[in-house]
Amino acid sequence: MNNRVTDLFQIKYPIFQAGMIWCSGWKLANAASNAGCLGIIGAGSMYPDVLEEHITKMQKATDLPFGVNVPLLYPDIEKLMEIIIRKRVKVVITSAGNPSIWTETLKKEGIRVVHVIANKKFALKAESAGVDAIVAEGFEAGGHNGKEETTTMCLIPEITDSVNIPVIAAGGIGSGSSMLAAFALGAEGVQIGSRFAACAESSAHDNFKNAIRSAKEGDTKLMLKDIVPVRLLRNKFFGELEEAYDACATREEKLQILGRARAKKGMFLGDLEEGELEIGQISSMISEPETASDIVKEIVTDYNDISQNLAKHLL
Amino acid sequence: MNNRVTDLFQIKYPIFQAGMIWCSGWKLANAASNAGCLGIIGAGSMYPDVLEEHITKMQKATDLPFGVNVPLLYPDIEKLMEIIIRKRVKVVITSAGNPSIWTETLKKEGIRVVHVIANKKFALKAESAGVDAIVAEGFEAGGHNGKEETTTMCLIPEITDSVNIPVIAAGGIGSGSSMLAAFALGAEGVQIGSRFAACAESSAHDNFKNAIRSAKEGDTKLMLKDIVPVRLLRNKFFGELEEAYDACATREEKLQILGRARAKKGMFLGDLEEGELEIGQISSMISEPETASDIVKEIVTDYNDISQNLAKHLL
Repeated sequence: MNNRVTDLFQIKYPIFQAGMIWCSGWKLANAASNAGCLGIIGAGSMYPDVLEEHITKMQKATDLPFGVNVPLLYPDIEKLMEIIIRKRVKVVITSAGNPSIWTETLKKEGIRVVHVIANKKFALKAESAGVDAIVAEGFEAGGHNGKEETTTMCLIPEITDSVNIPVIAAGGIGSGSSMLAAFALGAEGVQIGSRFAACAESSAHDNFKNAIRSAKEGDTKLMLKDIVPVRLLRNKFFGELEEAYDACATREEKLQILGRARAKKGMFLGDLEEGELEIGQISSMISEPETASDIVKEIVTDYNDISQNLAKHLL
Repeated sequence: MNNRVTDLFQIKYPIFQAGMIWCSGWKLANAASNAGCLGIIGAGSMYPDVLEEHITKMQKATDLPFGVNVPLLYPDIEKLMEIIIRKRVKVVITSAGNPSIWTETLKKEGIRVVHVIANKKFALKAESAGVDAIVAEGFEAGGHNGKEETTTMCLIPEITDSVNIPVIAAGGIGSGSSMLAAFALGAEGVQIGSRFAACAESSAHDNFKNAIRSAKEGDTKLMLKDIVPVRLLRNKFFGELEEAYDACATREEKLQILGRARAKKGMFLGDLEEGELEIGQISSMISEPETASDIVKEIVTDYNDISQNLAKHLL
């Protein structure tokens, strides 16, 4: 397949491996890039020197293109961007902030810029800011998410109808069938998070990977909607938050329960009771240990088989 | 296309027109059946004698198969079922209740039974009860909905993996592209609600149809989650409910705001301020006045075009 996404990012398959905090270090990015996807290092959970180390190791391991995901609310963002530019990273995926602040600077350096959005308003804003492509992320996605709660099935046609740049679908996608569904809806690429978070090369703690593989339907929920919407796996910490909401706790009380460094505790250190476990609804369909290469091979086979089979039986 | 859904229900296209309260009278069902779908009369908003009148008119208008949607919590359900059996209706779609209560009785009369579910547990229960097919309805669907908030993208593969009977996808589907997406996910049919609710033959009030066509992304929300989850279009009544939730109102206070007959007031009588307006997220993609036949023609053309085009560009 050759389309605008494979051309823009010089990749074999139009698949992004999501740059997830505590999961997406250089090992996962390298495995994903070698499997034909765009591997992405998640800078959101890294100090600047840690990011530099991961970029260095990635560049030593492969000549293939890769990206870095940068949440625009990162406190020391100038330092991150200085490293990204100096190390000649080819792709930056920005999220959680205003796309007009960094896009021009990065593009002047020859860097491809992609912005993550969850609604039409921000899709238009990102296009105006000059980004090369958009990741449109539906309600079912893990981690931080939009307030409109628009699902991937409704969001993708809404966004592909609104912008001219390519749209990469995220949220609920972890298989060849869901990738094909996203393409039917008009996406030209997909971003896969949860399934890569649980794979062998992810830097997440094994406890968290096991928890993802054990998750059943209904085990995740979009929480903290009034503060910063985030989809979490149910655990003890989640229960405490839910109780606070049921009891109509104040914002301050909720923030106190949330505390600090919960995501690291859960996803990187493996504390399944006290940690924050960010994962998507599609975790209910993940059950076997596997490598990034296993995932991509299965997706490619299933996508092609299902597509050919559907085209044999028209309405 | 011939598949288990077209065979079971003797229809040209594997498309159900949803049996929606206040929208799906015999006129809409007749138009949908004539366009090649399974037309469905929505009994949920009808007194028994009104349902009988609609069935009589439908049978006078066409020999094509049609169904009746029956919410199992309907207070006078024995009377409804007596009419359905006596009038020799061929298909019953049950929802909102235990599928084991009526399935056997209906099947003994030669009636095809379909049950609507929003999670795996009820899908398995419906299959055990002996239903012929399942409608699996995702979080983005209008009206009553599941507590798990599982989206169509995640629900369909979960359910098709769990049961052997055919799965009809609902929620977020109103176009050829979304129908193809549902089929990619493993569905063998789709149920379309919102788009038919707004069409010429729907019995909804014109004010409500205009409101659907004016809806933008983010204008619907799943409300009343602790009482009976229902996706509504934002209006004055919705705002009052939202305020009550923000103020942590008691269940009794919320029920008092909800009051009685709000759905009729909004959807049938056209009171856009005080009425309850049940509609799906996909309403944001509906903008033009159209007939049921227009809708089906466009879906068929788009489904076939997109499917053939996707199959030309494999991974």
